[in-house]
Amino acid sequence: MAYQPLDVHSVIDYIKNRPSMEQIFPKEALLSAKEVGDGNLNLVFIIQNQNNPQQAAVLKQALPYLRVAGDSWPLTRERMRFETQALLKYNELAPGLVPLVYDSDDEMSLVIMEYLGRHEIMRKPLVARKRFPKFVDHITTFLVNSLFYTSDLYLTGLEKKELQKQFINPHLCKIQEDFVYTNPYMESPENKWNPLLDREVQAVRANATLKLAIAEMKEAYMTHAEALIHSDLHTGSIMLNEEETKVIDPEFGFYGPMAYDIGAILQNLILNYLSHFAHTHDRTERESYQAYLLEMVRDIWNEFARKFDQTWAENNRGELVPAKYWDFPGGADAFAEYRHRYLLRLLQETTGHGGTKFLRRMMGIVTVWDISSIADPHQRAIAERLAIRIGARWVLERRQVNSIDDLIGIVREETEDVQVY
Amino acid sequence: MAYQPLDVHSVIDYIKNRPSMEQIFPKEALLSAKEVGDGNLNLVFIIQNQNNPQQAAVLKQALPYLRVAGDSWPLTRERMRFETQALLKYNELAPGLVPLVYDSDDEMSLVIMEYLGRHEIMRKPLVARKRFPKFVDHITTFLVNSLFYTSDLYLTGLEKKELQKQFINPHLCKIQEDFVYTNPYMESPENKWNPLLDREVQAVRANATLKLAIAEMKEAYMTHAEALIHSDLHTGSIMLNEEETKVIDPEFGFYGPMAYDIGAILQNLILNYLSHFAHTHDRTERESYQAYLLEMVRDIWNEFARKFDQTWAENNRGELVPAKYWDFPGGADAFAEYRHRYLLRLLQETTGHGGTKFLRRMMGIVTVWDISSIADPHQRAIAERLAIRIGARWVLERRQVNSIDDLIGIVREETEDVQVY
Repeated sequence: MAYQPLDVHSVIDYIKNRPSMEQIFPKEALLSAKEVGDGNLNLVFIIQNQNNPQQAAVLKQALPYLRVAGDSWPLTRERMRFETQALLKYNELAPGLVPLVYDSDDEMSLVIMEYLGRHEIMRKPLVARKRFPKFVDHITTFLVNSLFYTSDLYLTGLEKKELQKQFINPHLCKIQEDFVYTNPYMESPENKWNPLLDREVQAVRANATLKLAIAEMKEAYMTHAEALIHSDLHTGSIMLNEEETKVIDPEFGFYGPMAYDIGAILQNLILNYLSHFAHTHDRTERESYQAYLLEMVRDIWNEFARKFDQTWAENNRGELVPAKYWDFPGGADAFAEYRHRYLLRLLQETTGHGGTKFLRRMMGIVTVWDISSIADPHQRAIAERLAIRIGARWVLERRQVNSIDDLIGIVREETEDVQVY
Repeated sequence: MAYQPLDVHSVIDYIKNRPSMEQIFPKEALLSAKEVGDGNLNLVFIIQNQNNPQQAAVLKQALPYLRVAGDSWPLTRERMRFETQALLKYNELAPGLVPLVYDSDDEMSLVIMEYLGRHEIMRKPLVARKRFPKFVDHITTFLVNSLFYTSDLYLTGLEKKELQKQFINPHLCKIQEDFVYTNPYMESPENKWNPLLDREVQAVRANATLKLAIAEMKEAYMTHAEALIHSDLHTGSIMLNEEETKVIDPEFGFYGPMAYDIGAILQNLILNYLSHFAHTHDRTERESYQAYLLEMVRDIWNEFARKFDQTWAENNRGELVPAKYWDFPGGADAFAEYRHRYLLRLLQETTGHGGTKFLRRMMGIVTVWDISSIADPHQRAIAERLAIRIGARWVLERRQVNSIDDLIGIVREETEDVQVY
């Protein structure tokens, strides 16, 4: 079928004509569809059996342009192939932590997958101060399984390079390269920021030391092919409830630095932390939830590091450093030291990439709902100013970070004396 | 034509049947062929017009196994496609510094190229203390042009990733990963070393600090996709005379760390320097030629850095850090500082990769002619012991190297009091 964007009518015909979909919908089912895409790149339809809404699926179809900037930003639809490939890989590596894939169609640039009716996008409940007792366990398992098992630590060189080739994803890489690491820090027509932050934004753009460091992080993003990373793993790419966590939208997936994904999670949680200076007026409630978020950040890193280290020690199958290499007196300690250094490097790079992502959200093409939902610009500026300060320090001080407490310490120092209106 | 290895008879028929070869050989020419492959992987034929030996070509055909280890090490013949692709790319980027390509045939796994009858493989004349006044200029142009123009410093992200995809070269990468960074430092049946060096070899294998550092260099080799590197750029891959320099044998080419190529050149020159403790008995002659080699090492780095920096400043077309990013007061200085740091990192990584390559030549699958041609094992051991010491120090001290003189300083310190028999 030649590519054409579907609508709420044609999507039902399409589903009816896919034999694979009989696993979800009985042949005679009366289907309804609604389009719910709030994304920038895609149509997203929810299709349900009107007589049994439990029978449901999501169909996601790529549009040939980037919505956020109007029709003017053409994008290849091949990104849907990357999303499908990544979802299939994640289903294999981290089952239960991503939506099931029912079907896909490269020519139509679409994927049909599990409907997550009982899950919500993580940003909103975080603003509403909800707690998710299983999230740390889920997201760290997702990170370890998706990163470790696609890296040279687990795969043979041949396996890794074959997978890497499937995920050469230049068009979507370019979006992150431009919009995370470059354009926000110079004049570019799509940049947006709170006018109350003019001075801070101009200061970042003229800060040579900071821009040198950001350029170094960009170089790592563009050249360090460590693992299949999600590459857009913010809290808007996570759907969850108290019991389950599902990572969605991996169309940016490619072989890049592991720390980019970890940094995205931690940075989004801290940005949410900052947003509560405006969202949560009751001081006790605010401090309690902010403490919860910092604890979550600490737990995510520590639990990630623990699982990563243990998985590596127990599954040292990759060719980067084969088990036999450590077969000498003291070799077990040397292997442990190698893992320790590897994880310390990951933490420092997590700090650098995470720091950059604070800055891009404050002065680039797109902010996040945690911040944009603060109506009063003066209140918003409080969180935004802190985000810029913390982001800049994470980038600049990344090589001095020796534990997750150092990284959290920067957040604490910058938010000690916040004056809330 | 289905793959079959050619011989001195069938190769002539093959050439006669390639219309493209009429550019070299007249239709009625009486051709002769000889096989001269001393390599490990390929057949190499020189084909000449018997009545006009100036009319000549080289045909290189991949064998389906790695010769050095007998028939038992099967290798995909696709490596010839990588060699052809790389030769074509090098002809475009560094014309005159690689052989011309006349024709190629993927199915037969062969390439037909310029015959270099007036050039010799660099190792032998270096042992014979020949001097090549244009080599520094040639090899630094080759390095700058092949590395800079295939990197994110010059290409757009899309261009780079398309080229990277063409050069995903898992089988030949595996050879270097195993034989440079892994097997020499553990028990592996193909390892060979001078029995007089038993103690030194065992010490390297049990040196946890050194092996941690080598593992870090290997990680960079496997994941840092900076530029199209030759990846086997030792002095056996260079043919030259006083006037011309030609880089050959780029079948290992892939997107890897630039420093690997630079390190290969510098390390091979130092290894040749060490070999003269045995090859050149006259002290004055030896010291004069060794001084010449150290000067060449210094000049190569400095000239590489100068050309790289200038080429970058004048052709800042890549997307890694676009010119506009530096458009702020002090931005020109920041850009200069960025280039400076980039080159310092390259020098430190050059030291690390080069150091590893000293070690692998002393205790791995294959040594080099400079060393193996020293008949007396005691004399050979002098050079080999120094190579191990210098290699280990280059690896371990790489992050303290701030100029090429630091790197050369290690060579000087280790060779101050050499006792020659």
